[in-house]
Amino acid sequence: MNPSLPNYLKKQEGKRLFDLGDIACAWGALYAKCSFYAGYPITPASEIAEFLSKELPRTGGRFIQMEDEIASMAAIIGAAWAGARSMTATSGPGFSLMQENIGYAVMTETPCVVVNVQRSGPSTGQATKPAQGDMMQARWGTHGDHEMVALCPNSAQECFDLTVRSFDIAHALRVPVLLMLDGEVGHLRETFDLKLPETGLNLPKPPSPSDAPPFGGNPVPPQVLFGEGRYLHVTGSTHKPDGTRDVTTPEVHDQLVRRLCRKVDQNRHALKDVEKDIPRNSKTVVLCYGAPSRPAAAAVEEARKEGLKAGYLRLRTVWPFPGDELEKLPRSVETVLVPEMNLGQMSREAERFTDRKVVCASKVGGVCHTMREILSKLREVS
Amino acid sequence: MNPSLPNYLKKQEGKRLFDLGDIACAWGALYAKCSFYAGYPITPASEIAEFLSKELPRTGGRFIQMEDEIASMAAIIGAAWAGARSMTATSGPGFSLMQENIGYAVMTETPCVVVNVQRSGPSTGQATKPAQGDMMQARWGTHGDHEMVALCPNSAQECFDLTVRSFDIAHALRVPVLLMLDGEVGHLRETFDLKLPETGLNLPKPPSPSDAPPFGGNPVPPQVLFGEGRYLHVTGSTHKPDGTRDVTTPEVHDQLVRRLCRKVDQNRHALKDVEKDIPRNSKTVVLCYGAPSRPAAAAVEEARKEGLKAGYLRLRTVWPFPGDELEKLPRSVETVLVPEMNLGQMSREAERFTDRKVVCASKVGGVCHTMREILSKLREVS
Amino acid sequence: MNPSLPNYLKKQEGKRLFDLGDIACAWGALYAKCSFYAGYPITPASEIAEFLSKELPRTGGRFIQMEDEIASMAAIIGAAWAGARSMTATSGPGFSLMQENIGYAVMTETPCVVVNVQRSGPSTGQATKPAQGDMMQARWGTHGDHEMVALCPNSAQECFDLTVRSFDIAHALRVPVLLMLDGEVGHLRETFDLKLPETGLNLPKPPSPSDAPPFGGNPVPPQVLFGEGRYLHVTGSTHKPDGTRDVTTPEVHDQLVRRLCRKVDQNRHALKDVEKDIPRNSKTVVLCYGAPSRPAAAAVEEARKEGLKAGYLRLRTVWPFPGDELEKLPRSVETVLVPEMNLGQMSREAERFTDRKVVCASKVGGVCHTMREILSKLREVS
Amino acid sequence: MNPSLPNYLKKQEGKRLFDLGDIACAWGALYAKCSFYAGYPITPASEIAEFLSKELPRTGGRFIQMEDEIASMAAIIGAAWAGARSMTATSGPGFSLMQENIGYAVMTETPCVVVNVQRSGPSTGQATKPAQGDMMQARWGTHGDHEMVALCPNSAQECFDLTVRSFDIAHALRVPVLLMLDGEVGHLRETFDLKLPETGLNLPKPPSPSDAPPFGGNPVPPQVLFGEGRYLHVTGSTHKPDGTRDVTTPEVHDQLVRRLCRKVDQNRHALKDVEKDIPRNSKTVVLCYGAPSRPAAAAVEEARKEGLKAGYLRLRTVWPFPGDELEKLPRSVETVLVPEMNLGQMSREAERFTDRKVVCASKVGGVCHTMREILSKLREVS
Repeated sequence: MNPSLPNYLKKQEGKRLFDLGDIACAWGALYAKCSFYAGYPITPASEIAEFLSKELPRTGGRFIQMEDEIASMAAIIGAAWAGARSMTATSGPGFSLMQENIGYAVMTETPCVVVNVQRSGPSTGQATKPAQGDMMQARWGTHGDHEMVALCPNSAQECFDLTVRSFDIAHALRVPVLLMLDGEVGHLRETFDLKLPETGLNLPKPPSPSDAPPFGGNPVPPQVLFGEGRYLHVTGSTHKPDGTRDVTTPEVHDQLVRRLCRKVDQNRHALKDVEKDIPRNSKTVVLCYGAPSRPAAAAVEEARKEGLKAGYLRLRTVWPFPGDELEKLPRSVETVLVPEMNLGQMSREAERFTDRKVVCASKVGGVCHTMREILSKLREVS
Repeated sequence: MNPSLPNYLKKQEGKRLFDLGDIACAWGALYAKCSFYAGYPITPASEIAEFLSKELPRTGGRFIQMEDEIASMAAIIGAAWAGARSMTATSGPGFSLMQENIGYAVMTETPCVVVNVQRSGPSTGQATKPAQGDMMQARWGTHGDHEMVALCPNSAQECFDLTVRSFDIAHALRVPVLLMLDGEVGHLRETFDLKLPETGLNLPKPPSPSDAPPFGGNPVPPQVLFGEGRYLHVTGSTHKPDGTRDVTTPEVHDQLVRRLCRKVDQNRHALKDVEKDIPRNSKTVVLCYGAPSRPAAAAVEEARKEGLKAGYLRLRTVWPFPGDELEKLPRSVETVLVPEMNLGQMSREAERFTDRKVVCASKVGGVCHTMREILSKLREVS
Repeated sequence: MNPSLPNYLKKQEGKRLFDLGDIACAWGALYAKCSFYAGYPITPASEIAEFLSKELPRTGGRFIQMEDEIASMAAIIGAAWAGARSMTATSGPGFSLMQENIGYAVMTETPCVVVNVQRSGPSTGQATKPAQGDMMQARWGTHGDHEMVALCPNSAQECFDLTVRSFDIAHALRVPVLLMLDGEVGHLRETFDLKLPETGLNLPKPPSPSDAPPFGGNPVPPQVLFGEGRYLHVTGSTHKPDGTRDVTTPEVHDQLVRRLCRKVDQNRHALKDVEKDIPRNSKTVVLCYGAPSRPAAAAVEEARKEGLKAGYLRLRTVWPFPGDELEKLPRSVETVLVPEMNLGQMSREAERFTDRKVVCASKVGGVCHTMREILSKLREVS
Repeated sequence: MNPSLPNYLKKQEGKRLFDLGDIACAWGALYAKCSFYAGYPITPASEIAEFLSKELPRTGGRFIQMEDEIASMAAIIGAAWAGARSMTATSGPGFSLMQENIGYAVMTETPCVVVNVQRSGPSTGQATKPAQGDMMQARWGTHGDHEMVALCPNSAQECFDLTVRSFDIAHALRVPVLLMLDGEVGHLRETFDLKLPETGLNLPKPPSPSDAPPFGGNPVPPQVLFGEGRYLHVTGSTHKPDGTRDVTTPEVHDQLVRRLCRKVDQNRHALKDVEKDIPRNSKTVVLCYGAPSRPAAAAVEEARKEGLKAGYLRLRTVWPFPGDELEKLPRSVETVLVPEMNLGQMSREAERFTDRKVVCASKVGGVCHTMREILSKLREVS
């Protein structure tokens, strides 16, 4: 299940490449020992599939193009239960189709990675043009109560790094992990290194099948696989800790659903990953993620040169949302400015955690903010 | 398209029935002149389909059982474009499957009604047991930016009334309307009258196809139908006001998506529908919707007898969320208590609009709160 | 399962109508007490579905449009097991899609009626134009050994009569019956009477579920239905007389498959239905079925006026093929002329049973033979 | 489109292997330069897919498992139009599902190879047990008039050889070729050589896209591919020689369908492939194909030792059926004995071409005839 890196990859380790964020993500999958990919092509995510269709078999992995996104999501779930490290990639319309099975992955505690290279919706929208319109869907797209882990890279290097991390989280917590690229980052061509991140997240090691409950308090149960000789019952229905179905006893459901959420909640701190630079006397803080965080960083720098007291807070882990970062903003902060390639999604979440003014610098239409646009907004709210 | 009520229904108008919330919803559809229903059975929503399969043909309407929920949603969209007043009903798993096409209905401005009789998820969960776990999914389940209208009845009579209203809103704004029952309300058997609500919402009348833009400022364009002799292009892709596709010009997308949201936003006040009783000096306000609002009302009454200063705010329209009601809470209010049959969904939205303490009285496991449970929580937070 | 005719139909009995062969077929279904129709529209068969979608519900029956022809065939099989008298209608491409499930109906001994209003193939071909190109497919389209019953009307009245008969045969023998119209007959508008045929086929009455094997030698086992309280196992796999699966014992398969064929073979004589006029000294016999049989009859008459010694043999039951009629042709007969709207299908079967010259008067391209064409061919071969 | 053999295969050429008929067939595909395989697993054909899933990629080809047999057939048609040499393999139930698209391949003149490793039907039947029950379906399974080419190997070596030949025929005539194994031959393990047959069939070389009609009288039009720069219209509808659709002119359909059949008819002699040993004074001839031809050959030998005058005629090409071989049987022949693993299929075809007694030695139940059984039958009819 967790073999060492194939020679083919070992040889290239450390190499510097110049390529798309999508391709960096695909390389990340290889270095994360992804061994199964199922998907259906959709711009701007297709490059990931195209690359893996050639490269995955070279490392002993399997690639399969499925008939649609529902089947793709089902396939990676099935593969995970057979011991694969599995992944799919899509964009908005496919992500919507995957929602039922994403919930199935949550309920069955199936480790897998779902990449969404966001494009401009709703519906077919500006097919292929970048957006960040599926951020709230990432959290709430499937029915029923659940927690979700979602990461947002803003460079080709981070596409590589966070793909590796997505697999780590998926297998540490036995959850589907959503890697939320946007078309801008996915189609941006820049240098990145084939280098595994030196330090990972400080997540508890999952118990082994031979361990006995309560697994040292770790809410993640051991992963048992098909073919290992144990009796296995995998069900999307409410079930007891031993896997047997019980859809009537309220306590069984209550405990199951709360434990599934606790797996994420309890590791909220370990999962948190922000980049921040918030000077003590900041008046405005720019809260950002993904593509707009790059012009945002430049705008903050520029604003400071102009004498504005601006801070910068970037989320790499967007879900669970690091509300504590907003709760502990310096008293001086009056405004949180959130540049987003949508009509305001993460800015709404921010409002839950602070009583300062939250302003969304919204941009839709398939083009990312420029530095000037954010700077101008910064001046306006300061 | 909007024929007068068939004799068959006229004769029964005013009659009092004793039946399930689901059946009241189905009667509401008949009195709303629903003329097309497509669906796939799922507990606890199946009664709606079963009833309409028999009754809809008697009023000249069409009922069709589809092969799945994706097809069901597609069918009601198609029927709407042929002039039908169309509806489907489902529960969580089916609702997840419908998400892509719900976004298509948003983008194509297709009037239709989608009923979700919520059951206990995620995934198959406690199939058939009541819950309110899809409230955030209702708002954010499909990809891309959009607004959503969703209503929540708490009695058989409201199941009837709000179904009628759902059709009215759908056709006034050209949007899919989500009618969010919960299994408790859907399966509760009580009396209701076959009586059309006397007053409706104060929504602007949609322009007619012969009107010229800008339609008196109404962001809702006239509904043109297939078969009326005009050239029609219905697309989920970004399009100009005349319906022709343009997926590259940023302004076209920006204007389209913002207008689609403005249709709801601009009518936020007209759509608002709350039941409230918040005395001036209230210290705690119970914010509720759907099934738990009934024990909640009793608990507030009981609490007042005990001397607690409790207010009551019930949402019938949950989306758009009436944030202003929270913004204008009396100064005396310290806590907003939100009894929900989920792990806290609308309570999160409440946090965006108030700096008072928001406490979710969460209940999961397929059983609604009792009056005592809410009362006890009320005492605790007061 | 076999209720008396609804009043609605009783009242109209005896009425003379002027309509399409397709519509006559649909009326036949109503008078045959068809209670379930599932189908997918395709020209030139669509009128059958359209008519039944309105009329079937009026007699208490059910109509459902399915997502495709595979599902349609599956649905009528399922309905039959729930006690319905069930039917579907299609044309070539749909008929090809139905082949797997037609074999399932054979193996599970499911009574049902499949109408194929033949159009001009192969593949999409001259969509909508008449042909008789599926005659051999009717016999051999599904995999594995089997016998098949197929009927061929040549007038609107026969469309009515043979539809009624198809249901009778289906239920007497527990087989799918294929009613092979051609687009010419299906779209021909002429008078027909809503009058049940006075005499039926002399088929043995099927045993009742309370009878004991060997059912008086009748190879047709009693029909047991779901919902009647018995344990039922319906399988397309090889099974023993009691329905339990046995896919390994050669004798079990041998006996099952031979019995399934014997049901038809043993009733070969009762199923035979030919119209013939073969004078003793005939030199040429015209063998025909369906649309071309009408110009053929006129051509034979005309030929006789010219002094040619011509006989006429028309098949209403085409499968099982009445080979004995060819075996016992008068010695004088030198040629069998077979006008067919295909490249020669039933003429090939005729060759098996006679050593006289068999000549196919083939016509393809979507137009039926004229009387003159057949007459000219008659002169040529005489 | 027709590259030379990859080194990987060149190196192994001449090697002798000991393996299943199915595997020999798969090797044949590799040596025939098959570059695309799409399929869905079904016993007893699954070994072909399993083997090619590993080996095809090693030769630069593509393997894809599809969601069902309909999609599989569609995929190999599409691949052929992109220049691939494409193939699928299945058994009875899958073969039935493929029938519509096989007709589409006929009409669009798509070269491809469809392997049917026959098992014991109808329907699911004795899933996995050998049979020859799909021989008539091979000829008549799809709707509309058409000719068909089908080959029947009786050894692992012939599985290899006839697979290679199937590709040759498919591309020479632009037709789907059916390779009709039976489960006995497919699962028989014996030696075979990786050696391309020295001489092929004497089929005319297809014209090149730069040739002008009438292509030297060859009814096969040049194969034009997608991506070569020409405008292409591929349609299952009736079309003119230039590919444009015309579904109304009778002559266009007549000429198209007759030409499609002429492609096979005109090459009837070149396609003929029989093994025969019919001494002048034979009284009985054993006509056979596939698995039963092996005990049949032994039985003929044994019978001769006993003094019976027995001949042997084996078909490797079963469709088009070599009727002339029966027409020219020596006068002495009184009986044609046809051992078949079905209830009599090719024996029926034989009846068309001879007035001698045709006797089917039928065997069903999943087990092939023994030599003794055929010998005993031979004695009986002699």
